[in-house]
Amino acid sequence: MPEPMRALDTVRAVPGAVRLIDQTRLPHELIYHDCTDVREMIEAIRALRVRGAPAIGVAAAYMLALVAEKADTHSMPRLHDILECAADELVEARPTAVNLAWAIQRMRGVWEGLAMGPDAADMVVHLLREEAEAIRDEDLAMSERMGRAGADLLPPDARVLTHCNTGGLATAGLGTALAVVFAAHAAGKNPTVLADETRPLLQGARLTAWECQQRGIPVQVLADGAAGWAMASGLVDVVLIGADRVVANGDTANKIGSYPLAVLAKRHEIPFYVVMPSSTIDTDTEVGAEIPIEQRTSDEVTRGALGPIAPEGVPAYNPAFDVTPAELITGWITERGVVQPPFA
Amino acid sequence: MPEPMRALDTVRAVPGAVRLIDQTRLPHELIYHDCTDVREMIEAIRALRVRGAPAIGVAAAYMLALVAEKADTHSMPRLHDILECAADELVEARPTAVNLAWAIQRMRGVWEGLAMGPDAADMVVHLLREEAEAIRDEDLAMSERMGRAGADLLPPDARVLTHCNTGGLATAGLGTALAVVFAAHAAGKNPTVLADETRPLLQGARLTAWECQQRGIPVQVLADGAAGWAMASGLVDVVLIGADRVVANGDTANKIGSYPLAVLAKRHEIPFYVVMPSSTIDTDTEVGAEIPIEQRTSDEVTRGALGPIAPEGVPAYNPAFDVTPAELITGWITERGVVQPPFA
Repeated sequence: MPEPMRALDTVRAVPGAVRLIDQTRLPHELIYHDCTDVREMIEAIRALRVRGAPAIGVAAAYMLALVAEKADTHSMPRLHDILECAADELVEARPTAVNLAWAIQRMRGVWEGLAMGPDAADMVVHLLREEAEAIRDEDLAMSERMGRAGADLLPPDARVLTHCNTGGLATAGLGTALAVVFAAHAAGKNPTVLADETRPLLQGARLTAWECQQRGIPVQVLADGAAGWAMASGLVDVVLIGADRVVANGDTANKIGSYPLAVLAKRHEIPFYVVMPSSTIDTDTEVGAEIPIEQRTSDEVTRGALGPIAPEGVPAYNPAFDVTPAELITGWITERGVVQPPFA
Repeated sequence: MPEPMRALDTVRAVPGAVRLIDQTRLPHELIYHDCTDVREMIEAIRALRVRGAPAIGVAAAYMLALVAEKADTHSMPRLHDILECAADELVEARPTAVNLAWAIQRMRGVWEGLAMGPDAADMVVHLLREEAEAIRDEDLAMSERMGRAGADLLPPDARVLTHCNTGGLATAGLGTALAVVFAAHAAGKNPTVLADETRPLLQGARLTAWECQQRGIPVQVLADGAAGWAMASGLVDVVLIGADRVVANGDTANKIGSYPLAVLAKRHEIPFYVVMPSSTIDTDTEVGAEIPIEQRTSDEVTRGALGPIAPEGVPAYNPAFDVTPAELITGWITERGVVQPPFA
């Protein structure tokens, strides 16, 4: 039995708050950010202090447990209303990632499963905390399994191209696509990483590079537009990405810039895998065209950390995600191994 | 006869210097930068104060004229040596763009064409100045012709996707791919532009957006990774790029990130044109694999325009150009109209 991989404390419960690694401050500072109510959590999700489909699911689950604890009521009907209201607000924070809705639905199962009796309100606080912890623990365990399943597919010295951040920061602490790299590294396979910087928010340059560096895995960053030439130059053995939503036919929504990688990988006959827990599969949606794509502000593109890069008044086209058709994807690596659509 | 388009003063001769628009300062400031010797010109080319294959050709030509003027010698053999030495240094400043070597070779034709007689040194100063002015004037005239030839191909209200900067700043003052947009605009065709921001140096967000805004042409910038989704979403009618070198079989070197656009355009059956003066054609090179690709520093990606974005010590893969195979290119728009390889 190999040792479990070391996890990041991406999201956890502390007294009176949900504590997040503030991902907007990395790689320069490792700072924790406490959310004490739903409003603060929604701000943290929208501002991408916490990001990554599995991670925001865990964060929302912890927040619902905190809401119940802070409600300070013995009335189960009252608590029920407070939780429903909080759940409805949280689910709207980001529309594309399905894990957020999945985690909230799972928490809802707890409060809906209890009778409205006199002890229910006290019990639900306890049960919601346990359920949130279970979601986190299961996410970590799924990362371990995805990591091993994917690592088995990698050749020794695999040169992995990846996009956005799919490591511990994107999940409860271990990752999806990067968990495969971490597992291959732990197994002595010496993978190296080409990390797309991932404009506009640079999750690859900031977060993926940081996680690889922390774990001693060789990493180079590259402009997103350079990935095609890296493939054409024979520098890429496999492409591994995460997912925000995989629908029934296998079409896969992920960070903007994923779809071009799939088209290029197909041209160069490079395996292209999506790595995600099965909670990312949305069987209620048939095809990718039905996935809502979040449009974000122009400023994310036109103004950088050092100030404006485009002339004042020039707008941006800034979809947060794109959809890769299933036909371009070699396989979907989940905690159950490599799977293929249709997903039911 | 339509009115000539208004040109930028990208490069010009002033007493004792070659004066450039400093493109590293745009879009925030329109500042001129004087190069008084070869060393300063090489610095300006390497630092991309002047950039764009045709523009650096013009700049090098003016610099050779200035070198002759400043040499202050009546010995033609001595002047010949000084000019050869300057030419050899200038041609090394950037290896991929062929227009630099082309312009220098044309200037060399002037001093090699003169006898070593007693008046030659005085005459060559005058002739080199005239030749540099001719290269600039011809570049402007070629832009006008490329612009009109390309504009004829655009539908009304064409939504043009473009990469890097191919406007007046990239040439003597009017442009290559953007000259097509300018000519269509001047002809009342109402084109709009989606400008790839073009990491790492953001020539699209900074320079293309600025030129379009200056001319009143609607422009949106986008992350390079978003171009695929823009095409898949039906937002792009045509892709127009420039070129740094087109070889005999039509393979085309251009700013890193061009090749993925060609692969995506092919998939979506969107016309993909390269717009360049015929001086960009290098008939001595047979296929794209022989083109030297300049690798630039990690810092351009990991620090640079957006500030320090990657952790200290993480390197970058940073090729300045990629090569698009001829099979992905719909046509090459030159001052002679739309041409097809092989080029002889």
